[in-house]
Amino acid sequence: MIQASICTIGDEILIGQIVDTNSSRIATALEEAGIRVTRMLSIGDSRDEILDNLRNELTLNDIVITTGGLGPTKDDITKGVLAELSGSTGYVEHQGQLEKIREILHSRGLDMLESNRAQALVPERCDVIVNRKGTAPIMVFRFPEESFGATLYALPGVPFEAVGAIPSVMDDIRKHFLTENILHRNLMVFGIAESALSELIAPWEDALPEDMHLAYLPNPLTGIRLRLSIYGGSEEEDAARVDKEVEKLKKILGDKLYSEDDDTLEATVGRLLKTMGKTLSAAESCTGGEISHLITSVPGSSAYYLGSVTSYAISVKEKVLGVPSETIESFGVVSSEVAAAMAEGVRRVTGSDYAVSTTGLAGPDGDERNPVGTVWIGAAGPKGTKTVNKIFKNDRKRNIERFAASALDFLRLMILEDLNK
Amino acid sequence: MIQASICTIGDEILIGQIVDTNSSRIATALEEAGIRVTRMLSIGDSRDEILDNLRNELTLNDIVITTGGLGPTKDDITKGVLAELSGSTGYVEHQGQLEKIREILHSRGLDMLESNRAQALVPERCDVIVNRKGTAPIMVFRFPEESFGATLYALPGVPFEAVGAIPSVMDDIRKHFLTENILHRNLMVFGIAESALSELIAPWEDALPEDMHLAYLPNPLTGIRLRLSIYGGSEEEDAARVDKEVEKLKKILGDKLYSEDDDTLEATVGRLLKTMGKTLSAAESCTGGEISHLITSVPGSSAYYLGSVTSYAISVKEKVLGVPSETIESFGVVSSEVAAAMAEGVRRVTGSDYAVSTTGLAGPDGDERNPVGTVWIGAAGPKGTKTVNKIFKNDRKRNIERFAASALDFLRLMILEDLNK
Repeated sequence: MIQASICTIGDEILIGQIVDTNSSRIATALEEAGIRVTRMLSIGDSRDEILDNLRNELTLNDIVITTGGLGPTKDDITKGVLAELSGSTGYVEHQGQLEKIREILHSRGLDMLESNRAQALVPERCDVIVNRKGTAPIMVFRFPEESFGATLYALPGVPFEAVGAIPSVMDDIRKHFLTENILHRNLMVFGIAESALSELIAPWEDALPEDMHLAYLPNPLTGIRLRLSIYGGSEEEDAARVDKEVEKLKKILGDKLYSEDDDTLEATVGRLLKTMGKTLSAAESCTGGEISHLITSVPGSSAYYLGSVTSYAISVKEKVLGVPSETIESFGVVSSEVAAAMAEGVRRVTGSDYAVSTTGLAGPDGDERNPVGTVWIGAAGPKGTKTVNKIFKNDRKRNIERFAASALDFLRLMILEDLNK
Repeated sequence: MIQASICTIGDEILIGQIVDTNSSRIATALEEAGIRVTRMLSIGDSRDEILDNLRNELTLNDIVITTGGLGPTKDDITKGVLAELSGSTGYVEHQGQLEKIREILHSRGLDMLESNRAQALVPERCDVIVNRKGTAPIMVFRFPEESFGATLYALPGVPFEAVGAIPSVMDDIRKHFLTENILHRNLMVFGIAESALSELIAPWEDALPEDMHLAYLPNPLTGIRLRLSIYGGSEEEDAARVDKEVEKLKKILGDKLYSEDDDTLEATVGRLLKTMGKTLSAAESCTGGEISHLITSVPGSSAYYLGSVTSYAISVKEKVLGVPSETIESFGVVSSEVAAAMAEGVRRVTGSDYAVSTTGLAGPDGDERNPVGTVWIGAAGPKGTKTVNKIFKNDRKRNIERFAASALDFLRLMILEDLNK
């Protein structure tokens, strides 16, 4: 199995100033290509530490991917150290990257400075993948058998640029390292615990052909990603065999399956609404805007999303959403009745086809009627209104996130039911 | 300088399934105590790799902090490997942790299983810090001079528990490793670029006493944290000297300083509103709920926050917020006039004292009038309405975040002006 190591370079990570999210994204891509990540490390902007660590990682692995340390400022010494490590005695100006730098600066209305131009300089002993998302080139150092017999990819540290570089880097890796085909199918599942899911699909899983492998990849916010993989063999034939198994699994999962595209719940809801040509609104109390934020994080959501009311105060529930004060008095703010009235209220006010609502206690405190972590979710649509109650045992932040995910899933199930009728 | 290494154990990180946020939180605490983090690494759940890596880190550092691998499932082998590494030949049941486990299970209405009880077992050669946030104890292995002459702290991997353990771990580190006092003062600044800030405070910075050190810790969402530190000396006297310098700096920073407590903008706005006994609402278009989400992420925000309207559709701007359709037609949706009308509209509808609004283009596309990244922000209060225009050059997600942060800061400045009148 091909082995890889991911190495983040930069003092700002070691002092805790920023969280490294690049390594995780790179690891996902490597793992999906069947490459084993043996180690991730973060080191500082120091020549000796960069040299020592990279030599060690290059000795132990086939592939080393670094991020960071390639900016135009004087702290960023990675390029010089890589020149040294590769035995390059000079730099060459890469015309393709220079053109890209010019283009990026032009689009921002800026002139090219000497420090910008210097970013197109690369050590002579490296290949370049032009960075379409930023000014620092992606450098590829192919060390021959007699030194390390390994390849180092140097990516920029800015997350937007690092993530943007992953597809080109993976293409190069596939070309130079991988002989075997791997085929994955993702099935995104929500609303069932890992243990219950495992029990539910055990008969199917036990009967899987030996060359197919199933992985459970749970995430508290997006549910469980089931990934079915097959290694080697002819691509076309494999695809047909995997598809057959996926079809069987889909029947077992039913409406617990929400996407086959490694999608989010909010993107899935958006896709369904677009298909049907219907619109959506939201009324949020305890989720405080998180549901609306998730829905609008999907590009193009303005095609189906009309808006929301965050009714944190009772007066806003009554005045803006028209929740009757008697309903609140009789049943309490955190109740099925108020969740229903909120969903119906925002649907009426915005004129949307569907509406989702939440009312609950995210924490840190509960109230006299309900423990902390309680939520009532409402969904209203052309065929009526439904509510559901959930209780989570997390801190405020995580409770808000789980309330929002559960509400999106509840809404999805209502839309799906209407679509299938 | 005391040196430390942070090591995350668990396959789920190496396959990119989760992002490691624990290391960053631990690094922040270590750095603030004047301890240098030399390296962070993530390794898999494999005996050999754990042993090899920890031996190496213990040789090179004074302190090694691990997270993860301490759960009750069979993948979690860290405890056994630590027993081996420390030469422990048996386990002892830690009564304090056992009591804590019983308490946690009881609060969740669960009985104690054998696997729960086993979590209180620790290798005989370790000290225990009782974990108040979870069931896995915090284990401290003090290796004598003749083996590594270093201390290893083993923390659980669940972020809530790992972060909860940091204060106790830092107390132990202070007791055993630190002789010198360090005193920090944080000043949070927003709305000025790092280079401009550096120029603004240069005369003050150049005149700082030699034993004081200033650090710039920029963050695109919370602005720049200026940290003034003093090492060694008598605590009381130092505090007085640092305070004197902070007072001078505050005069220079003026209203660009938003907090002295390492706070967020949303918490600062909340603090100001509480002081004045005033209320707030929001009208969001391009930020889609993010401002409301940030405001309500502060515990206790229901004391001053009434709610918001996300008016993604023009019809909601007109019908719910009462923005005149002529205003939209004459000036366009992304305009000073619409931002003002939205803020005034939500203030009227909710009856709040203050209101903040956004209308803009987060991306991926601009429109015929404005480039992508354009936002108009409005703030309305008892003394009138103001608007401001900003342009950012990020992707959709980051643009939304920066729009929201800028809106909160614009609102803060309005409230501050009223407070100081």
